[in-house]
Amino acid sequence: MIKRVFITGGTHGNEACGVVLAKHFMASPELFSGFSFDTTVMLTNVASIGTNTRYVEEDMNRCFFKADLDDPTKTATLEARRAKELNAVFGPKGTSAAADFIIDLHNTTAATGVALMMSPTDELGHAIAAHLIALDPSVKVCNWNATQADWPMLPSVGKHGMTFEVGPVPWGVVDGAVYKQTRRLVLAALDYVEAHNAALARDGPWSSSTVQVHSFVRSVDYPRDASGELAGVIHPQLQGRDFGRLARGDPAFLALDGQTTIPYTAPEEEVEELFPFFINEAAYYEKKTAFMLARRIDRPVQVAKQSPQYELS
Amino acid sequence: MIKRVFITGGTHGNEACGVVLAKHFMASPELFSGFSFDTTVMLTNVASIGTNTRYVEEDMNRCFFKADLDDPTKTATLEARRAKELNAVFGPKGTSAAADFIIDLHNTTAATGVALMMSPTDELGHAIAAHLIALDPSVKVCNWNATQADWPMLPSVGKHGMTFEVGPVPWGVVDGAVYKQTRRLVLAALDYVEAHNAALARDGPWSSSTVQVHSFVRSVDYPRDASGELAGVIHPQLQGRDFGRLARGDPAFLALDGQTTIPYTAPEEEVEELFPFFINEAAYYEKKTAFMLARRIDRPVQVAKQSPQYELS
Repeated sequence: MIKRVFITGGTHGNEACGVVLAKHFMASPELFSGFSFDTTVMLTNVASIGTNTRYVEEDMNRCFFKADLDDPTKTATLEARRAKELNAVFGPKGTSAAADFIIDLHNTTAATGVALMMSPTDELGHAIAAHLIALDPSVKVCNWNATQADWPMLPSVGKHGMTFEVGPVPWGVVDGAVYKQTRRLVLAALDYVEAHNAALARDGPWSSSTVQVHSFVRSVDYPRDASGELAGVIHPQLQGRDFGRLARGDPAFLALDGQTTIPYTAPEEEVEELFPFFINEAAYYEKKTAFMLARRIDRPVQVAKQSPQYELS
Repeated sequence: MIKRVFITGGTHGNEACGVVLAKHFMASPELFSGFSFDTTVMLTNVASIGTNTRYVEEDMNRCFFKADLDDPTKTATLEARRAKELNAVFGPKGTSAAADFIIDLHNTTAATGVALMMSPTDELGHAIAAHLIALDPSVKVCNWNATQADWPMLPSVGKHGMTFEVGPVPWGVVDGAVYKQTRRLVLAALDYVEAHNAALARDGPWSSSTVQVHSFVRSVDYPRDASGELAGVIHPQLQGRDFGRLARGDPAFLALDGQTTIPYTAPEEEVEELFPFFINEAAYYEKKTAFMLARRIDRPVQVAKQSPQYELS
């Protein structure tokens, strides 16, 4: 049973749709009453919300490795310390006390639409995704790197969890359409958790389904000159095409002369088709990531079927 | 005659298209050879480029009032000090030594397209605008507040100058299409300056033209609650509609419930039609500006006619 749910905003303080939505949820407890579980809404990187920056000293959404949380000497940055505080609230990670489900609200400057980022092994996360895709077919699912044993992202502290990544939105901006869509889908996710609890309580019915998943493979950097400065930018023909097909030889970058196209080159041995996402995310210039690439797979998942007692809205 | 031209980028360090374009221009001096005037390209708020923020201590594009530049005690912030350094390079403001023409490269998260912001009295600025509109009819002209005797923006230091404002682009992002369009039009502006010098040298020919100008009238804030927090965001129907018509009663904001529309209300005595711009500019949340409003007028301007000696490209 899902008993303790957390909705968190401001893990990146300049991702303003999520911050404003979290504040709205905190001021609207009636939205979370009547469920079979408790929902707590909170702001996480409060310092970076105050400065309207992604982070103050370190990207907090890379501070939640279990080894770092458990290491008492990992306190060098404001964000490392805050991650430990948060781990005490909705963790400790990897223990039976950890929150059952965490939704962490994010925005990206990339045209991802609503992209739900989660562990490849999180069955509930994928069931929620299946429900949200049924409501809004534009919703995408991404899996964190499947070759890792642990992940450093905030929602990984919970037994289940997801990054609710929505774009495109500039830093510091609340886009009305994105805000409205996110609000609706987050509340619908809680509706599904309620249906999940109901199905658990009566042992069903469950339905077999599949979810299309974009599974992280690798990142691609911008072209750079000898001193590491940008030598090209995302090509206009690739801009905004997150989750579309990218074939070898397609325009990927535009050189700074504004005219020369730099095509996408994949390693020769790579024969499978990959799909770009996080194209031109502002925060990833410093991470040397122009876009990420995913393989696309269909993942089976068991979902709680609707019942007369609980009609999904 | 125009002898000294400056192209400046990074007055707001996170407006990355302008920063990257200025760096490209600095690395490409051949683009500025063969003209009858000298062109210097430089980065202005270097500290804020380093932190990828609009400013470090104060908005530098409000530090160029002549009274502040001339006041030796106005040195409290990094930006106030840097403004004085820059004034020594391409000023001093209001003197015969000041640069003849300054193009300051900016970006906005608002869907302004290319908007040229200038003094209402700058004849050369408007002639350049007329030329650029002939090349690209999407170019818009905005005038700074006509009721002021002086302006605090960087290009106001020159005898002529303009803010080259281009959007929508998120902070920290280089958008390929915006970059390409900006690069082309900045170089075309220099072509016009060359034609202007040639026309001055031979006393013509000049042609009478008009330029559509958006003249700043007032700013409109977001709806806010009692504690000053946002109570609404730009309505999806207004988002991206910069320089469109906004009538009394049109949707302006969406309340945080994601459903309630808050209409645009104009003072009763305001009978003229106004046009919104800078809709949802990220940096203006803290300035309590959801959008600005302009009246639209046709301004006469004298432009250098093309000649066999100098074909405008």
